[in-house]
Amino acid sequence: MPSGPSPIITLTTDFGLADHYVAAMKGAVLRHCPGARLVDVTHGIARHDILGGSIMVERAIDVFEPGTIHLAVIDPGVGTDRRILVARIRNQLLICPDNGVITWAWRRQGPAQVHELTWRPAATSATFHGRDILAPVAGMLAAGRDLAAFTRVMDDPILLPIAPAAALNEGRIIHIDHFGNAMTNIPLDLLRQSPAAKVAIGGRMIGPIRTTYAQAPIGQPLALIGSSGMVEIAVREASAAQELDLRIGDAVELA
Amino acid sequence: MPSGPSPIITLTTDFGLADHYVAAMKGAVLRHCPGARLVDVTHGIARHDILGGSIMVERAIDVFEPGTIHLAVIDPGVGTDRRILVARIRNQLLICPDNGVITWAWRRQGPAQVHELTWRPAATSATFHGRDILAPVAGMLAAGRDLAAFTRVMDDPILLPIAPAAALNEGRIIHIDHFGNAMTNIPLDLLRQSPAAKVAIGGRMIGPIRTTYAQAPIGQPLALIGSSGMVEIAVREASAAQELDLRIGDAVELA
Amino acid sequence: MPSGPSPIITLTTDFGLADHYVAAMKGAVLRHCPGARLVDVTHGIARHDILGGSIMVERAIDVFEPGTIHLAVIDPGVGTDRRILVARIRNQLLICPDNGVITWAWRRQGPAQVHELTWRPAATSATFHGRDILAPVAGMLAAGRDLAAFTRVMDDPILLPIAPAAALNEGRIIHIDHFGNAMTNIPLDLLRQSPAAKVAIGGRMIGPIRTTYAQAPIGQPLALIGSSGMVEIAVREASAAQELDLRIGDAVELA
Repeated sequence: MPSGPSPIITLTTDFGLADHYVAAMKGAVLRHCPGARLVDVTHGIARHDILGGSIMVERAIDVFEPGTIHLAVIDPGVGTDRRILVARIRNQLLICPDNGVITWAWRRQGPAQVHELTWRPAATSATFHGRDILAPVAGMLAAGRDLAAFTRVMDDPILLPIAPAAALNEGRIIHIDHFGNAMTNIPLDLLRQSPAAKVAIGGRMIGPIRTTYAQAPIGQPLALIGSSGMVEIAVREASAAQELDLRIGDAVELA
Repeated sequence: MPSGPSPIITLTTDFGLADHYVAAMKGAVLRHCPGARLVDVTHGIARHDILGGSIMVERAIDVFEPGTIHLAVIDPGVGTDRRILVARIRNQLLICPDNGVITWAWRRQGPAQVHELTWRPAATSATFHGRDILAPVAGMLAAGRDLAAFTRVMDDPILLPIAPAAALNEGRIIHIDHFGNAMTNIPLDLLRQSPAAKVAIGGRMIGPIRTTYAQAPIGQPLALIGSSGMVEIAVREASAAQELDLRIGDAVELA
Repeated sequence: MPSGPSPIITLTTDFGLADHYVAAMKGAVLRHCPGARLVDVTHGIARHDILGGSIMVERAIDVFEPGTIHLAVIDPGVGTDRRILVARIRNQLLICPDNGVITWAWRRQGPAQVHELTWRPAATSATFHGRDILAPVAGMLAAGRDLAAFTRVMDDPILLPIAPAAALNEGRIIHIDHFGNAMTNIPLDLLRQSPAAKVAIGGRMIGPIRTTYAQAPIGQPLALIGSSGMVEIAVREASAAQELDLRIGDAVELA
């Protein structure tokens, strides 16, 4: 096996799986760090959906160990002068364009120490900085190169206007998963202040917070604390998004 | 590279690839066994399709070496008191909910020595035992921890009412693949007793068992022994499922 | 970790991700070379789309290091006597059926030294040579076995009638990616001879070659040099394939 360091490097993109783009990034990482252990988070982020990428990479930071490096490339501004960030969060590194992808990790896993990438390769394409810039930097950092050699400190990353709910009237749907379960921005902490609160959505009463899917009859909706520690709206053994016609941004009422 | 053991751990789920769920399981495995070699079987099992997951993980057990650990998480009962199994089959381990996912491996690769998982983490979500229980157990077993420390022996796993055909009138379609080829439950062994048998489906004659796709004209159906060692219905260079309107459960006539 | 060699082995297929087929190939590789580092290029090649597979595997050869082994299995002729190739290109190996999959690597990354695979296993299925022949050979070569022991030299691989444009009137669309960007066969080299050339397609003027997506207004088409070093037709923040109704094979006019 390759000698030398072998950090985990995760990848989150909107590239899809039909092209060679993800492999091109992996090749660039492995060139600099042959022992890197690569883990795909998802490449199914909707085209240019910065919020979606932001939430997925925060979930990855939540589950991986100190020392992990996360590459998150949702990059509609590729080829412009938008900055590229390297952020240290929970002793992990997040490498991403400065377009808001950092937001959910910043809000949920912060504080973050943020750096602007100053390194650029001798030649770069105008359309694929993931392969030409972000992945090589991930590989070099994984191989043990010093962050300060590539970056300068900054403190004003672009953040999306989305945050964990701090009051009962701030609930929103922020993600809909493969099963049609709707994740909200309502953290368990907030609920602890109002343990008897009932959840409604679009005027439809869902009910109190349950502890498992099995507490609702099959085909009926329920609210519970999802695996992310946030309130989740589900329909037992069906798609809540479809049955309740839910969309990202919908208000979630708590009372 | 990480020192220590490095078993292969495969993953079969109905999670899809649009979320972070698969990566969350991989993070949990790697926390306990940094050298684990992770191989995805598929995450495209239809939601809650226990039979489909059962067949895919049996195919994985068929191809991997002794010492491999298979995680199969199709788990509509997550959060209820359904048991979790660790089964030893062909010197490999299968970790899965006790809901029938073990069935096809039990029937085709058995006998299995089955254990009920008794270990639980200090805290677990109600909705994602794959990340919170099954993957950590896979990681700990991969790292060399003793199975007996986590489990107790049992002998009554839930099995689906499906089995390899033992007589010519028991043929059924059990899986339809990406190419539209239909895998049946008719093993090569059974055919050896009736080598001249012809295959029909829904009253439509397909013909005798061929040895390669090329023995049928383009666009025409044929039956042959597929890569799983079972009779397969195909249409040369087209989708048999679509051309012949095949569905899982359809009877396959042999005479 | 496994001791011994650990080459990178990439996989490009039309198998999709819903079945166990990709994992079956990986299991066969790992049986012969436990330390192999496996990287998926794509399994989303359209069924039997040899040209599409050819372009994707050329992109992989472009980005990976000497010593990498590429498996490309788009194999409508499986089970017939079509040959299997092992080609040495840029000090990498490409293992694929002799049906034209080698074409784009041959044209863009050549010259290639081509061998016909003579090794066959004791038993093989008629429908899955990827698992039974190509993957084991990749694993054995990865483990350090000598190429000459498996192959004989040949010089007449099947090539598709497609090549990089050598004149301004030879432009064609050869690939459409996940974002709807259309890759052409027009290399940067050819453009250097006519730097002021304008691009049109189906009689619609696209304009001169731009350097970044941001040089077009949102929703407007542009031509630029894509990450492959070829002219690419894009629509800023939208799908060129959809907006301009582009298809593989369409002529691209340069004047």
